[in-house]
Amino acid sequence: MLITLLTDFGYKDPFVGIMKGTILNINPSALIVDITHGIPPHNVMEAALALEESYGYFPQKSIHVVVVDPEVGSGRRPILVQADDCYFIGPDNGVFTPVFDAGAETLDVIHLTAEHYFLPKKGNTFHGRDVFAPVAAWLSRGISVENMGERITDYMTIKIPKAQSKDDRVEGEVISIDRFGNAITNIRQLEIDGLYIINPMGGIEITAAGATAALRNHYSEAKENVLSGVINSSGRLELFLYKGNASAAFNMKAGDPVAVRLAV
Amino acid sequence: MLITLLTDFGYKDPFVGIMKGTILNINPSALIVDITHGIPPHNVMEAALALEESYGYFPQKSIHVVVVDPEVGSGRRPILVQADDCYFIGPDNGVFTPVFDAGAETLDVIHLTAEHYFLPKKGNTFHGRDVFAPVAAWLSRGISVENMGERITDYMTIKIPKAQSKDDRVEGEVISIDRFGNAITNIRQLEIDGLYIINPMGGIEITAAGATAALRNHYSEAKENVLSGVINSSGRLELFLYKGNASAAFNMKAGDPVAVRLAV
Amino acid sequence: MLITLLTDFGYKDPFVGIMKGTILNINPSALIVDITHGIPPHNVMEAALALEESYGYFPQKSIHVVVVDPEVGSGRRPILVQADDCYFIGPDNGVFTPVFDAGAETLDVIHLTAEHYFLPKKGNTFHGRDVFAPVAAWLSRGISVENMGERITDYMTIKIPKAQSKDDRVEGEVISIDRFGNAITNIRQLEIDGLYIINPMGGIEITAAGATAALRNHYSEAKENVLSGVINSSGRLELFLYKGNASAAFNMKAGDPVAVRLAV
Repeated sequence: MLITLLTDFGYKDPFVGIMKGTILNINPSALIVDITHGIPPHNVMEAALALEESYGYFPQKSIHVVVVDPEVGSGRRPILVQADDCYFIGPDNGVFTPVFDAGAETLDVIHLTAEHYFLPKKGNTFHGRDVFAPVAAWLSRGISVENMGERITDYMTIKIPKAQSKDDRVEGEVISIDRFGNAITNIRQLEIDGLYIINPMGGIEITAAGATAALRNHYSEAKENVLSGVINSSGRLELFLYKGNASAAFNMKAGDPVAVRLAV
Repeated sequence: MLITLLTDFGYKDPFVGIMKGTILNINPSALIVDITHGIPPHNVMEAALALEESYGYFPQKSIHVVVVDPEVGSGRRPILVQADDCYFIGPDNGVFTPVFDAGAETLDVIHLTAEHYFLPKKGNTFHGRDVFAPVAAWLSRGISVENMGERITDYMTIKIPKAQSKDDRVEGEVISIDRFGNAITNIRQLEIDGLYIINPMGGIEITAAGATAALRNHYSEAKENVLSGVINSSGRLELFLYKGNASAAFNMKAGDPVAVRLAV
Repeated sequence: MLITLLTDFGYKDPFVGIMKGTILNINPSALIVDITHGIPPHNVMEAALALEESYGYFPQKSIHVVVVDPEVGSGRRPILVQADDCYFIGPDNGVFTPVFDAGAETLDVIHLTAEHYFLPKKGNTFHGRDVFAPVAAWLSRGISVENMGERITDYMTIKIPKAQSKDDRVEGEVISIDRFGNAITNIRQLEIDGLYIINPMGGIEITAAGATAALRNHYSEAKENVLSGVINSSGRLELFLYKGNASAAFNMKAGDPVAVRLAV
C-alpha cells in the first residue's frame, strides 16, 4: 500500500529518513512517496493547501501522512481520517480541513489512542516518528481503522480564506507563492466565469500588487516583465511573470489582496 | 520499469509528488527515481547538462522524464525520444540536445499527440502532471512508442558551448556551479591531453576569474584558499577550493571564460 | 535489501540520482531510501550526528552509505563497517565514529580494496558513484563482506564533544541547528537527571546564548519569544522558541556553550 509524506521537516535533517525507516521496519513492503517536505515551518495553512492540491492524484487506498505540528507533545490529538477510500494521518490542528470540506460520502475521524501501535515513548517532540509513521505502517499492513482509537466529531478545522463575488468583481487574495515566484490565489475559474454572465463580451482585468494584469491562456502568451494572470492547473487564478519571478518583482506574499473585474 | 524525474520544480511545492501519484495511479509497480528537482527555474541548459551527466548510469530501458518547460501550454510540442534503448520524455525545447548529440545508433523522436494517454485537460501550466507523467507511466506499462504520436525530425536543439583548441591553449567557459561551489567547465580531459602532444614535458596552467590555477589529481592535493583545477568524474575540468567554495570566493558563474595553456 | 543514502551532495545537482542509477544498474531490486543530502558541505561531524540519530530506526541488515568526503581521491581509505547486523559504507574519515562507539557485540571494519566491485575508474572526485554505490549494491546482492577487502583496526575516529557533569551543573555545547532553528546540544537526559540526585526538589535552569531558559515538557508549553529547553526525541537537551527560530533570534550556532544547573 502507498504511504505519502507531507511535512515541514525540510531537507537538511534526518527526520524524514527516520520516518521512512520506522515505516519500513514495520512494513518492509510499504511504498513511500514524498509529496513535499518544504512546507514553511509550522505553516498549517500551506500544508493544507498542498494536501488539497495533491491527494486526488494518488491511487485509492493511499495513506497520506501530514506532519506540520507546532503543538506536538501537548494535548492536541493525533488523528486518522478516512474519507471514502483515502486515509490521512496527522495532528488534529486543522491541516485536514480540505479533506473535511471535500464532501466525501463517508467520513470517519479517529482519535489515535491505541498506543501499542506507536513506538515506545521516547520524547515529546517527534510524533512523526513515534506516532504517525508507525500508525501509517500498521494501517498499510491491514490493521483496521477501528482498532486505532475512538471516533470523534469535534475535530479541528482552520479557516481557509475564500474569494467573494460582488456584482462585477471577485475579491480574493494570494494564498501561496510557489517555487517559481508565481502567486497562487484563492480565486477560481468558476468565479471568473461568473463575471462573463453579466457581460459575455467584457474583458477581464486583474488588480494585484498595485498593478493591473491581463488574463493569459498560458505563460508564454505574456510579455516578459509584465505581471500577468493565468488559470493554473488547479483551476486557480495565478499571477506570474513569464520567465521571471512575480513574487520577487512585485513583492507579493500570501494574504495580499487580488481582485478580478470586468473591464469596460 | 524505471522512470526518472529531472525538473526545475524545486522542493517546496507538491508538484513532484503529484507527478509521482499520477504515474503510480497508472502503473502501481513503476519504480520512480529522482535525478534532481533543483534545476534553476526555466534553465534548459542546466537541465540538459544534468541529464547528460546522469542518464548513462541508469539501467537500459529506463524512461527519463525531464520537465524544464517555460513555454508550457504554448505551441511547443511534447516529445518522446528513443535513443537506442533509452527513453526520454519532455518538452521540445532543446533539453534533449545531449541525447541527440550522443551518437545513438537508432534515434526516434515522436511528437506526443495521442491525447488518450494524457490526463483529461485541466489547464495550461502543468504538463509534468497532465502529459509527461502519464505518457511515461503508459510507456512503462508497455504501450509502444509508435502509438504515442508521429515521428518528427525538426525537433529543437540548443547550442551547448564547446571549448576551442588553439595551438598551445584551450579556451572554454564555466557551464555550471555545483552545490559545493565548484565551477564545472566545458573543457574536457581530451582537449587538455591534446596540449601535451605539443610539448610532453610542459606544465599546465589554468586561467580563470583573474587567477591562475594548477591542475591537481584530487581535491585534497590542493592548498586551502588556492584556486585549483581537477579533472572531475565527468571528464571535465573543474575549478575548486579545497574545503571551500570557489564560486563564492572568486565570484564565478556560468559563462565565465576559462583557458588552459602549456606553461613555459 | 535496503540501502540508505546520507550525503552532503545537496539537491541541485544530479549526484544523488547518479548514485541511485548506479545501484539499480547492479541490483534492480534494491530499495533505496534517502536519510538526508542536506549535510553542510564537508561537515563530517554533522553527518556523524545525523547517522547516529537515524540508523537505529531502519531494519536489520540495512546498508547505510554515507558520503561526506572532502579528501575524496586522496589516500584516505574507503571502508565498510559491519556492526552487529548493520552495514555502513563510506570514507575512513571518522564519519562512522558513533557506530564505533555504540558498543556493538561484533564490529568489523574492512578497507575496500576489491576494485572489481567498483565502477571502472573515471576520476578522483566522485567515489559516491564509483566506489560506495557499487559496493553497496553488490553487498545487497549477497557478496560477502570478506570479499570486499581486508580487515583493518586503525580506522579513523573524530572527537565528538561530550558534556561534562560538575557538582551542581552540566556543561555542554550546541552540536547542531535543525531546520526549525532548534539548537540541539550534547547534554543528555541522563546527565540532567543526575542533578536531581543532589537535590530532588531543585529546579532546572539552562544558560545559553546569554539567556536563561526553563525546561519544558513539550514545545507548546513555552511562551512564544521566550528561549526554552526541552528533552527532544533523541534524549538530548534542545533549545527552542515556540513557533519561532531560536537560532536566528539568539544567534546560536554549533559550538556555543550551554550549561544546566540546579536553581536555588
